[in-house]
Amino acid sequence: MVSSLPITDPDDPRIEPYRAVRERDLIGREHRFIAEGEVVLRVLLRQRRFAVESLLLAENRFDTLTELLGSLDPAVPVYQASRTVMDAIVGFPIHRGILALARRAPLPPPETLLAALPEDALVLGLVGLSNHDNVGGIFRNAAAFGASAALLDGETCDPLYRKAIRVSVGGALVVPFTRAMSAWEMVDHLRHAGFEVLSLSPSGSETLSQIRREGRTALLLGAEGPGLPPALLATTRSVTIPMSGGFDSLNVATTSGIALYQLTR
Amino acid sequence: MVSSLPITDPDDPRIEPYRAVRERDLIGREHRFIAEGEVVLRVLLRQRRFAVESLLLAENRFDTLTELLGSLDPAVPVYQASRTVMDAIVGFPIHRGILALARRAPLPPPETLLAALPEDALVLGLVGLSNHDNVGGIFRNAAAFGASAALLDGETCDPLYRKAIRVSVGGALVVPFTRAMSAWEMVDHLRHAGFEVLSLSPSGSETLSQIRREGRTALLLGAEGPGLPPALLATTRSVTIPMSGGFDSLNVATTSGIALYQLTR
Repeated sequence: MVSSLPITDPDDPRIEPYRAVRERDLIGREHRFIAEGEVVLRVLLRQRRFAVESLLLAENRFDTLTELLGSLDPAVPVYQASRTVMDAIVGFPIHRGILALARRAPLPPPETLLAALPEDALVLGLVGLSNHDNVGGIFRNAAAFGASAALLDGETCDPLYRKAIRVSVGGALVVPFTRAMSAWEMVDHLRHAGFEVLSLSPSGSETLSQIRREGRTALLLGAEGPGLPPALLATTRSVTIPMSGGFDSLNVATTSGIALYQLTR
Repeated sequence: MVSSLPITDPDDPRIEPYRAVRERDLIGREHRFIAEGEVVLRVLLRQRRFAVESLLLAENRFDTLTELLGSLDPAVPVYQASRTVMDAIVGFPIHRGILALARRAPLPPPETLLAALPEDALVLGLVGLSNHDNVGGIFRNAAAFGASAALLDGETCDPLYRKAIRVSVGGALVVPFTRAMSAWEMVDHLRHAGFEVLSLSPSGSETLSQIRREGRTALLLGAEGPGLPPALLATTRSVTIPMSGGFDSLNVATTSGIALYQLTR
């Protein structure tokens, strides 16, 4: 039975990691991250990669979560505060009234992550994706279609940023990921691990609907606007999604959904 | 040659429609709407459905838009203001420095809109979609894949809301749409106009990848969470996108992209 620890003073040192959440998110939390909302909490408690360190709940949420909290390690503190105190701690209204602090797992070297994947693995490579909504949306799609993992270049933003996790509906907690220094290093690692590398671009030379996946496959996605570097398209199998009407670009998260749909049919 | 009309006083009555944009957007603008940003302006000036009534530009934007403004009716006033004055008028910083005021076209009766469509028309039916990001995303995809039109039920939000237009990258200005009173009325109109009606749902009985479009086809989309009413699924051809990994729902805009991709292959 989980019991809650009431917090009445916003300056209580026990809830220090929840203070001024937005500002803290921006400067980074080193080895921790914040997850919010019931759907995400449900995913967080179901997985084993990230250890939950504490929860902070609005008073009225504790009773609605009894069953879910039953799966929580009883040693994990569950702090409870009034809406007013919670808002004062966090710095803005957390409508869902549910926050969790969890520990990041260290990022494995790309070769280690790739070596552990199955023979028919499908991996996404994210290049220069600096928008949290897009990265969250891509992880949601990756989880929905059962992608094995994601590799991120140095420009791609953190999938464990609070908003990215929320948009991913917890997919960022489910799909394993790690970073490569650059798109080139990413492609090198993928090839060494036996992956065929596809790259998506409006200027791609093959049509997505004609692609059939055979063995380990990786799919590179670049940001809307700049897209993937032409030199990268030239050395990989470049693929396009034909469109009509003079609109030549889809949102990159939508693109990932379409490509994952096609490659997992 | 378009010339600009300098605005130095935020209370200048000529720019009254641009004042307190957010508040005005919320209460509605009757027969007008506001569009923002260069990409959207480009689409707006290319189409003929909506008459542009005026532009409001930040000082530094006028020179960058010379070519584009050449296609503007010279009778349309182009107001120009410093960033400070523009922000004071609008009520928040318009980073893109470009706003346009345009006139809505009256919404045609659904039967009129449908009658004018081609024999192989593909139409989207939006049911209960109250999120502007999702509706904008759907219109972006509809434009990208050349959908002929969209029908909206009473709960679905306005595609000409500023944010929806922005997210649609102008698609909301391109794809014709109108409203039906309800999803049921929508389906009635579609059937009378010879459309086969598909409905997308995680509980759909056919698999999307097996669907081939023949003749006029309509695709109904419901909100994440509630989804489409079961009675509606029962009377239409219900279709699902198979997924793995316990994640049983995609974002509705992504879903529309995948379905449009499949149905226009």
